[in-house]
Amino acid sequence: MSSKLSLARPVDTEPAEPTSGTDHVALRLWLRLLACHNLMEEQLRTRMRESFGTSLARFDLMAQLYRYPEGLRMREVSRLLMVTGGNVTGLADRLVAEGLVERRDDPMDRRAYRLCLTARGRSQFADMAEQHEQWVVSLLAPLGERNLAELGELLGRLKNQLGTL
Amino acid sequence: MSSKLSLARPVDTEPAEPTSGTDHVALRLWLRLLACHNLMEEQLRTRMRESFGTSLARFDLMAQLYRYPEGLRMREVSRLLMVTGGNVTGLADRLVAEGLVERRDDPMDRRAYRLCLTARGRSQFADMAEQHEQWVVSLLAPLGERNLAELGELLGRLKNQLGTL
Repeated sequence: MSSKLSLARPVDTEPAEPTSGTDHVALRLWLRLLACHNLMEEQLRTRMRESFGTSLARFDLMAQLYRYPEGLRMREVSRLLMVTGGNVTGLADRLVAEGLVERRDDPMDRRAYRLCLTARGRSQFADMAEQHEQWVVSLLAPLGERNLAELGELLGRLKNQLGTL
Repeated sequence: MSSKLSLARPVDTEPAEPTSGTDHVALRLWLRLLACHNLMEEQLRTRMRESFGTSLARFDLMAQLYRYPEGLRMREVSRLLMVTGGNVTGLADRLVAEGLVERRDDPMDRRAYRLCLTARGRSQFADMAEQHEQWVVSLLAPLGERNLAELGELLGRLKNQLGTL
């Protein structure tokens, strides 16, 4: 397992003391975003493991298959998850062995197949997704409704802007 | 290399269409934060590789050593970077071989050592960090000063709140 872990970004790389003189607004913002991301992900990772014995990678793979009921080719899954084929293959093999995912012939390409959630896979994912959303709600709620709406709006703008790069 | 890549979260997991009926504000916010994080990181990863032939993991390791001129023990580095010792060891070995990092005896523990940047490592990191900050500025600037200040403020609050978990 451990050899497959990447070097995650540090949980909190924001220097405790502001760097002297100049402002560094943008860098500070990025380090805060990084810290929020890592703290949230760590919480979700732990809860997912403790409640469902599931990794985030597995949850994300199932989420993609849930979004595409007609199935996805391996290379599409890899692209969506930005991973090497090898890792997706290993994860998919396990999900197939557990009866949560099945390989179906690809009507567009005789040599290829598509990965699809089985009925049991869809139902298990739906349960996990519901719980996952409740965790997200509970992690964010203390910020207050108004701040959440504002933060969501600003992140939406930033996302759109970054998406055009 | 590829076997060490983790399953990164998808770049953009936010459904194109709002899920019907209920609001899902928190989940939407989290998916946007995830997308912003992944899009930013991908940009920084690519630029770091193209300009300096350096991975973000290596940059992050050097950043931690830069912050602690008195050096860090391996387990401290691993904790700060949230990685397995194996990966940090491999990275550190390469940095030592290139003369950017050195191992110094640990005054507190005869059997241990500390990793420190060499003078050349500090100077190389400072160059990379300056360029890295310019990239961050250019990626965020289109949002506008006022939005950046507001987003930074809200992310700071969220970070503090998540940090108390």
